Amino acid sequence: MKTISLTPLNQSVQVDRSVIAPFPNSKKIYVQGSKPSIQVPMREVSVSSTQTSSTPEYNPSVTIYDTSGIYTDPQANIDICKGLPDIRSIWINDRQATEQLTQLSSNFAQQRLTNPELQSMRFGLNRLPKKAKAGQNITQMHYAKKGIITDEMEFVAIRENLRLQEQLEAGVYNQQHKGNSFGASIPQQITPEFVREEIARGRAIIPANINHVELEPMIIGRNFLVKINGNIGNSALGSSIEEEVAKLTWGIRWGADTIMDLSTGKHIHETREWIIRNSPVPIGTVPIYQALEKTGGIAEDLTWGLFRDTLIEQAEQGVDYFTIHAGLRLHHIPLTAKRVTGIVSRGGSIMAKWCLAHHQESFLYTHFEDICDIMKAYDVSFSLGDGLRPGSVADANDAAQFGELETLGELTKTAWKHDVQTIIEGPGHIPMHLIKENMDKQLECCDEAPFYTLGPLVTDIAPGYDHITSGIGAAMIGWYGCAMLCYVTPKEHLGLPNKEDVKTGIITYKIAAHAADLAKGHPGAQIRDNALSKARFEFRWEDQFNLGLDPDTARAFHDETLPKDSAKVAHFCSMCGPKFCSMKISQEVRDYANNTETLATTELETEMQEKANQFKLQGAKIYNKV
Amino acid sequence: MKTISLTPLNQSVQVDRSVIAPFPNSKKIYVQGSKPSIQVPMREVSVSSTQTSSTPEYNPSVTIYDTSGIYTDPQANIDICKGLPDIRSIWINDRQATEQLTQLSSNFAQQRLTNPELQSMRFGLNRLPKKAKAGQNITQMHYAKKGIITDEMEFVAIRENLRLQEQLEAGVYNQQHKGNSFGASIPQQITPEFVREEIARGRAIIPANINHVELEPMIIGRNFLVKINGNIGNSALGSSIEEEVAKLTWGIRWGADTIMDLSTGKHIHETREWIIRNSPVPIGTVPIYQALEKTGGIAEDLTWGLFRDTLIEQAEQGVDYFTIHAGLRLHHIPLTAKRVTGIVSRGGSIMAKWCLAHHQESFLYTHFEDICDIMKAYDVSFSLGDGLRPGSVADANDAAQFGELETLGELTKTAWKHDVQTIIEGPGHIPMHLIKENMDKQLECCDEAPFYTLGPLVTDIAPGYDHITSGIGAAMIGWYGCAMLCYVTPKEHLGLPNKEDVKTGIITYKIAAHAADLAKGHPGAQIRDNALSKARFEFRWEDQFNLGLDPDTARAFHDETLPKDSAKVAHFCSMCGPKFCSMKISQEVRDYANNTETLATTELETEMQEKANQFKLQGAKIYNKV
Repeated sequence: MKTISLTPLNQSVQVDRSVIAPFPNSKKIYVQGSKPSIQVPMREVSVSSTQTSSTPEYNPSVTIYDTSGIYTDPQANIDICKGLPDIRSIWINDRQATEQLTQLSSNFAQQRLTNPELQSMRFGLNRLPKKAKAGQNITQMHYAKKGIITDEMEFVAIRENLRLQEQLEAGVYNQQHKGNSFGASIPQQITPEFVREEIARGRAIIPANINHVELEPMIIGRNFLVKINGNIGNSALGSSIEEEVAKLTWGIRWGADTIMDLSTGKHIHETREWIIRNSPVPIGTVPIYQALEKTGGIAEDLTWGLFRDTLIEQAEQGVDYFTIHAGLRLHHIPLTAKRVTGIVSRGGSIMAKWCLAHHQESFLYTHFEDICDIMKAYDVSFSLGDGLRPGSVADANDAAQFGELETLGELTKTAWKHDVQTIIEGPGHIPMHLIKENMDKQLECCDEAPFYTLGPLVTDIAPGYDHITSGIGAAMIGWYGCAMLCYVTPKEHLGLPNKEDVKTGIITYKIAAHAADLAKGHPGAQIRDNALSKARFEFRWEDQFNLGLDPDTARAFHDETLPKDSAKVAHFCSMCGPKFCSMKISQEVRDYANNTETLATTELETEMQEKANQFKLQGAKIYNKV
Repeated sequence: MKTISLTPLNQSVQVDRSVIAPFPNSKKIYVQGSKPSIQVPMREVSVSSTQTSSTPEYNPSVTIYDTSGIYTDPQANIDICKGLPDIRSIWINDRQATEQLTQLSSNFAQQRLTNPELQSMRFGLNRLPKKAKAGQNITQMHYAKKGIITDEMEFVAIRENLRLQEQLEAGVYNQQHKGNSFGASIPQQITPEFVREEIARGRAIIPANINHVELEPMIIGRNFLVKINGNIGNSALGSSIEEEVAKLTWGIRWGADTIMDLSTGKHIHETREWIIRNSPVPIGTVPIYQALEKTGGIAEDLTWGLFRDTLIEQAEQGVDYFTIHAGLRLHHIPLTAKRVTGIVSRGGSIMAKWCLAHHQESFLYTHFEDICDIMKAYDVSFSLGDGLRPGSVADANDAAQFGELETLGELTKTAWKHDVQTIIEGPGHIPMHLIKENMDKQLECCDEAPFYTLGPLVTDIAPGYDHITSGIGAAMIGWYGCAMLCYVTPKEHLGLPNKEDVKTGIITYKIAAHAADLAKGHPGAQIRDNALSKARFEFRWEDQFNLGLDPDTARAFHDETLPKDSAKVAHFCSMCGPKFCSMKISQEVRDYANNTETLATTELETEMQEKANQFKLQGAKIYNKV
C-alpha cells in the first residue's frame, strides 16, 4: 500500500487534471436565489445551429444538473489542501441555533488530533465544529415542520427546477411523454414551499450536516429527480488517501449526487476529513465499520459507548448521513439460516454476530433514541440500513428481508418524532417480477420515507457485469418510486473498483436514474433526449457527443473508425457509410412527405405524379428545409 | 481496407485460438434423441465440492445452453475453409420433398461463380443447393400443421429442456420463484409435441433453411427460452471476410443464438458464403441491402425483379431468415414528417425513398405473396421489418410506428396462409412506461407471432453506452413476452463494432434474456443463479467464475487486486479484506442460528445464555456444518 506524505503546507497533493478539464461546449453557470449567498450551480451545454438552405436555425442550449462542484469551473481556484469554499456558514449562523465547540467532543478524535505520527496525513483543518445549542433542534425537518423555508430549501428548489420555464419558452425541445409515476406528484415547477412540504412530510430529505459547510445542497425524494450514490473508500488491502480523494472528484465529475466513504482500512478518520473538506456533495458513512476497526476487528467487543463516540467523531467532521443497521433484530437472525447467501451486508453480519455473542437485542435498536439525540444535534440524516437484504435471487423477498423492513418502518416513526431526516435502504438481488412488490411494501411500511436501493441485481449469473445486472433493476425501481440508487461497479463481488470502474458505475446509474425520470414523466426530463436526438438527426456530431452523459467516450468511439475532422460533419458514420445512412436518406424523404402531408388520397395520386417528376428534375440533392 | 487472399486450397484462414479455447471446467456434451443423427449440444460446467468439517458435500454440475458449435469441442476438427459438418441432410432427404438443383437459380449468383477475379475469396462449396419439389411445401410450419414432428422439432425440444429433470433430481439448486409470465404458458417439460403445437400455432419458429445443413436447430418463441441475436457485417468503410468470420465464431462463443449478416460493403455474396458454411446458428440477412448495392446505391433503381433474384440467391446459399420491410406503405410515410429522428431503419428509408420516387405502393407489399412462394420453397422465415421504428424517445409509439405494426399483422396472416414461418421486428427507442403497451399491441395485432426487438433503448442520452440503455428495455420487453432480443453494442449510433464490442453486446443481452426468463418463471432458469450464489457464499471462487457468463473477465477482475493463487480459496476479497467479509461472518452466525431456529421465545432466552457460553468456549472458530 502506498504511503503518502502530506502536510498542511505540502502542496504535493494536486487534483487530477482529467477531473478539472471543463466539459466540452459547457459553461458552469450559477443561478442566484433570493440573496447573493444563494448561488446554485448548473451546467449549460451550447449547441450549433441547424444548417438549412436559407438562414441557419438557432438551437437553444440545454441546462444540465451538475454535481461536479467548482472542479469544472475554470474561474475557480482549486487547492485540495485547503478544501472547498465555505458556502453555508452564513445561512447556519443566521439561524442562530448553533454554537461553536471549544474542543472536539469525541475522545477518539482528540487522540487522533494529538498523535504526532498522523501529522503528515492530517488535513489540517483550523476550525472547531458546531453543534445545536442546548434544547434546540436544527434539522431541516424541524424547520420544515415549523413552516420555515431555509436557505438550503430554496437552493435545492432552484437546483431541481433546472431553469425549466426558460427552457420551455425556447420551444424547441418541449416534447415530452406524460409518463406513469405510480402516484407520485411532481409539480411542473419546483418551489421552495413545495420542498418544505415534502421535507415536513418526511417524503424527502436534504442531507446537510451543519459541519459540512462546503456542501452544495441537494434533495432526495420521490417527487424530485432520481439521485445516484457512488461508493469510495479504502480497505485493508488497497488504496491511499490520495486515491480516495481522486475517486471522489472523479465520481462527482461524472454525476454522483452523493458519495459514501466506506473505508475499512487504515486512517479512516483522516481519509474522511480530506474527503468531506473537498466534497460539494453529501458524504455518507457506515459508522459501524470504523467502530469495528477500533476493536481490532472483533465484532463481539463492540459496545454502545464505542459506537456513540464514533457517531460524534464523524458528525463533528461533517458526515451528512449515517447508514445504521438498527432494524436487524435478534429474532430476525434465524430467518437467515436457510438462505443461499446468508447475510451479505457487512454491517448486518457484524451486528448479527454481536447479537448472538451477547445473546441480546442489538444495541443499535435499543439505543435508537440516543442515536436520534446525536443526529439531531448536527442534522445528520439516517440511512436505515438493510442488514438482511438478499444477496442472491433465491433469497429475494424472504421473511428475513421483510421482517427487517417492518422494523425500519417502526424506527422511521421514532426518527420523525425527533425530526431526524430519514431514508430507507433496500435490496439487493431481486428478479424483475418482484421489484414492484419491494417498492410498494416499502412505501407502505415506511410511510413514504425515501427509498435508497443497491441495484437491485436482476440475476446472479454475471460477475464482471454487475453494473448492468443491477442497472436494469435500478432503472425499474427508480421508475416505481425509489428516490436514490446506489451504484454498482463491474468489480462488484470480485474486488475493489478502480477509477475506470467508478466512472462506468456512475454512467450506468445516471442512465438508470434518467430512464426512471423519463418514465415517471418528470417535467423537463425529456429535453436532453430531444436535444441530443435532434442533433443526431441533423448530423451535428459534436453536439450529439457533448449532450451525452460521456462526451469523451462517444467522441473516441466515433473517431476510431472515422478519424478525420471532416468526419465530424459527415452525413454518415462507419456503421453504414455514405450511401446507406438511413438518417441521410430520411432527411430527403421528410421534405417530400412534408409537402404532401395535407393532401387527400385522390389528390395525393395526381400530386405524386407531379412530385415524382419534380423529384427527378431536382436530381439527387433533395435536402430542402421548408 | 484489408485485402484477403483465400483459395479453397489455401489453409491460411485459421480460426482464432481465443474462440476455440474450451470454457473452464466445461465439457461439451451431446444428448442423443430418438435416433443417432440427433445429437443435441450442451455445455456441462462442473463445480467443486463444499468443504465441511466432516465429508465434503458433492455439488452437481450445471447444464448450460450452448450456441458455440463444435468450436469449443476439443474433439472436433475445425477447418474454416471446409466449413462445419453436415448435420441435417439426412433428415431433409428423409422427408423426400426436396430435390437438388442442377444449377444456381439466381443470375447474379451464376455471374459471381464464374467471375475469375473472385476466385481468391470464394468459399469453394462443391455442392448445389436444394429446393422444394414442385407443389411441395417444406416449411417447419407446414409439417407442424400436418401433425408431423420433424427431426428439427425433436432436436430443439431436447435443447430447450436442458436436461431439466436430471438437474432437478439432484435436488441442490431447485429453488425457483414462481415468476409472472403475463399469460405465457411454459410447461415444466418441453416435449417435441409441444414444439409442434407452438409452431403450428405460429407462436414459435425454427429458422432452418434446407440449404443450411450445418445448422444446430433452435427455436424462437414466447414459451421457450428468450433468445438473442448478434449482428456482424462489413460496410464500405471497414472489415474483411476474415474479420467477419472471426466475429461470427466469437459471437456464438459468448452466446448469440442467431447471427445477422448486415454487410453493406464489398463482396456481400462471398462473405455470406463463408459465414453460413461455418455457422451452427441461424443466419439472418436484410436482402434489400445487397439489392441496393447492385444498383450502385440508387434506391430509385430497385426493382421487384432485382429483389426477387437477390432473395433466391441468398436462399440458395442457406440464409435462414430475411428481414423484409413489407409493412412500410406509402400512406405511412407522411406520418414521419414531424418526427424528431425521421426514419432510422436503413431498409425502411430505402423503401420510403423508392415509394416516393415512383409514387407507388412498396413492391415488397404488392409482391408479398410472390415472396412467400420463394420463402416456402427453401423454408426461409420472415422477420417482418419495422422500417418505421422510433429512433428517439420522442417518436416512441407514434402513428407511423403503430400504423406499420398493423400492416405487419395483416402480412402475418398472409404468410401463415402459405405456412411461411414469421417473426415480427420491433423497436427501437421506448421509455420504460411505454414498453408494455408495445408488447401488448404486437401480441394483439400479430396474433402472437414471435416478437423480435432492437432493445428498446429507454433513453437517448448515452451514446457510447447504448448496450446498457437498450439492455434495460430488452430485459423488460423479454419479461413481457418478447421472444428474441437483437443486441446493441457500445458503438451504436457511432460506428462499426469491433470484437470487444461484439462480446460486450452479447453478454449484456444474455443478461437481459436470462433476467427475463427468471422473471417469467421459466422452469429451471434459476438453477444457474442458485449454483453460482451457493459457490459465492462458500468462497468457491473458481466455481463462481466458471458458472458466470464471462469466466475470463470475472477471474481477471478478481486477480487484479488479489493475484496469488491462494486468494482463489481466500475467505474474503479485496473489497473488504479478511476481517470484514460479510460472507465469512455470516457463515459463523448461520450455524448458530440453525441451532436455535426451532426454539420458542422463552426457551430461546435460556438456550441463548447457554449458547453464548458455548460460543465463547469454542473460541473464534464457529464454522460447523450440522
